[in-house]
Amino acid sequence: MKILFSLFLLLLSPALFALEEWRTPDADNIVYLQLDGGTVIIELAPFIAPKHVARFKDLVNEGFYDGLDFYRVIDGFVAQAGDITEQKLTAHSSPLGAEFSRKAPADSNFTVVQSPDFIAPQTGFLHGFIAGRDPTTNEEWLLHCPGNVAMARNTEINSATSDFYIVIGQAPRHLDRNMSSFGHVLYGMPVIQALHRAENNNPSGIIEKPEKRSKIISAKMASKLPIEQRINIQVQEPASVAMQQRLTSAKTLDNEFFYFKGNGNLDMCYYQLKTRIVDK
Amino acid sequence: MKILFSLFLLLLSPALFALEEWRTPDADNIVYLQLDGGTVIIELAPFIAPKHVARFKDLVNEGFYDGLDFYRVIDGFVAQAGDITEQKLTAHSSPLGAEFSRKAPADSNFTVVQSPDFIAPQTGFLHGFIAGRDPTTNEEWLLHCPGNVAMARNTEINSATSDFYIVIGQAPRHLDRNMSSFGHVLYGMPVIQALHRAENNNPSGIIEKPEKRSKIISAKMASKLPIEQRINIQVQEPASVAMQQRLTSAKTLDNEFFYFKGNGNLDMCYYQLKTRIVDK
Repeated sequence: MKILFSLFLLLLSPALFALEEWRTPDADNIVYLQLDGGTVIIELAPFIAPKHVARFKDLVNEGFYDGLDFYRVIDGFVAQAGDITEQKLTAHSSPLGAEFSRKAPADSNFTVVQSPDFIAPQTGFLHGFIAGRDPTTNEEWLLHCPGNVAMARNTEINSATSDFYIVIGQAPRHLDRNMSSFGHVLYGMPVIQALHRAENNNPSGIIEKPEKRSKIISAKMASKLPIEQRINIQVQEPASVAMQQRLTSAKTLDNEFFYFKGNGNLDMCYYQLKTRIVDK
Repeated sequence: MKILFSLFLLLLSPALFALEEWRTPDADNIVYLQLDGGTVIIELAPFIAPKHVARFKDLVNEGFYDGLDFYRVIDGFVAQAGDITEQKLTAHSSPLGAEFSRKAPADSNFTVVQSPDFIAPQTGFLHGFIAGRDPTTNEEWLLHCPGNVAMARNTEINSATSDFYIVIGQAPRHLDRNMSSFGHVLYGMPVIQALHRAENNNPSGIIEKPEKRSKIISAKMASKLPIEQRINIQVQEPASVAMQQRLTSAKTLDNEFFYFKGNGNLDMCYYQLKTRIVDK
């Protein structure tokens, strides 16, 4: 059994867990997607895309997504859900203004991890989300890492309404600052990875037969559920000792497992914050 | 239905398919993994890791992997298979010398796409695989992109024997030049993505209960099967007009869909070559 022993030590050491600090997200920003394969938990990011978050909450609370499906699933790219028929009635259908980035407020808690990143001037963390920053323009945005949740749109930048996608493959970083990212999957990515895909050579990625599409059984805000029905999920703090040690080691590969020690750079999208579910 | 229309045009345009050129891999380098969820097709890379490829072929032809399982599956990282018990008899168990990279031969067909890459001095293609290159040392290696297949090892660099892993998440580029990559999944990544995962908070990634592990029903070399049982898979040529246009557009985002035009860099691991299965 070859288990990359030292890799455990570097990335996943149980010995470091005791030092970790955990954040419990606000239940008002937590969404449960119930799919055939299980529960997916999304944290919303109102600090970066307030209108998109408000819209998503309205649609969730309206029951809009219940019974809809993942109609466009391209392996290695995105899983996109919503109303492909555009027939389902909703009180929340007006096009949304783009929220690709924000002007950083004076008290922004953005912390730099990699500068420069190969696409962004800086990458790091913002309110517990993987983010980019351009210090020359003072803009901040969420990165299209695996698990990133964003609203789909047409070519017109202010055209998003209700269909959303989740990144399931190598980060499509060309979509950074081009789409309104408004959340991130905290739990249940294996459920998303098991969604039915479009056929290999279907360039649109649309799953034409509705019966082949994976369904959304329900979408609910955690804050609308009784306390006893909520899932107590916690997210690692970027500033925790464990995460800081992990990032430092990631840049230096200071472990005998590594023959080639890298060049000091890292890919922020690989270094996602850990999450855990704890008993209440 | 918001389907990122222009993204189709950029990345997946059917209009360009007519110009594409396709390569049919040598059947002697094609492996079929039969899993519960379907067939996975791997192309081996003897040009970079001849001893590891020879070992893998020996083990496949011996039936070693038949009935073994994916015993370590970490979402967003790797799916690792082999004999966790280390009890299965095989004539091919000696430790292999590391083949992390090769000295480029004078007639290497490495083509540069991104220079510098954020980790490697150069990234591009080598014999139809995504690869890195250091022109100062004249070394070439395969990148740990999603779908990359490599042999697992212990801390000692010359310790790989038979257990292998497939990258299933954001590219763990810190493993480049630290592991012997010897192949790439051409087809069936959704089957790999649907493999049963270790529990969320199990740091080792080991799936302790054997009955929870996804099985390898069989592994076979295409060249050992009658022609009529082979799958006619083809891989896009990096030099094809379609791929070259895709890469050029990826650097410039020269499409009205994109509001932010990027900085001219790209992540090689996102731009995988397309594959297709055609009737014989």
